[in-house]
Amino acid sequence: MTVRKFSVSDATFEHVPGLDGEVFTGNLVDHRHGAPITIGYGRYGPDVSIQITLAVDDVMVVLKGQLSVTGDEGTVTAGPGEIVHMPKGDRVTIRAHEDGAITAYVTYPHWQEAEGG
Amino acid sequence: MTVRKFSVSDATFEHVPGLDGEVFTGNLVDHRHGAPITIGYGRYGPDVSIQITLAVDDVMVVLKGQLSVTGDEGTVTAGPGEIVHMPKGDRVTIRAHEDGAITAYVTYPHWQEAEGG
Repeated sequence: MTVRKFSVSDATFEHVPGLDGEVFTGNLVDHRHGAPITIGYGRYGPDVSIQITLAVDDVMVVLKGQLSVTGDEGTVTAGPGEIVHMPKGDRVTIRAHEDGAITAYVTYPHWQEAEGG
Repeated sequence: MTVRKFSVSDATFEHVPGLDGEVFTGNLVDHRHGAPITIGYGRYGPDVSIQITLAVDDVMVVLKGQLSVTGDEGTVTAGPGEIVHMPKGDRVTIRAHEDGAITAYVTYPHWQEAEGG
């Protein structure tokens, strides 16, 4: 493997399986590429809200818009340049604000394998 | 563990051990926190250049400025919102452009453990 660079325009956004609402992910590095991590961009429509139980450790870097993430111990809200770490096993609600959101994400281990997808 | 949010202002920037030049990292999540990954922010001074052999898989999301990363197969240049994946084992040169750069990074496994630090 070698050094690779990605832009949002490199991502092919797909609906997140099993989730209603306007939530899309585009993996750029995943189990197909030999690295131990999954890397991609996420896109959230305005005011969309999803509940998931994290099968992996998931790190989101917010690039545009704002996201609020509610876990067992309350809610955090992150905007551009901020990082949210969602530990494996947590049950969370992710809610986009009125402008939607774009994120860069890194998961360990691979998100799709862990989801069984 | 629970959901956590980080901003650049949460990071305590320290010189990268063994590297000359104005390169600083601030870990926010690492081997002390039980997660399998290290999360932090990086800060590069104007025109600084460093050479490292990657002891871990390292993902940088550029938040401000621009970085060029040269590996075996050439050079990529990334600006705000772009992601650079540097695979474990690669020897790379990271160079900041004239405005320096701020990054968010995620590594697997832990960067400091892998470095022996």
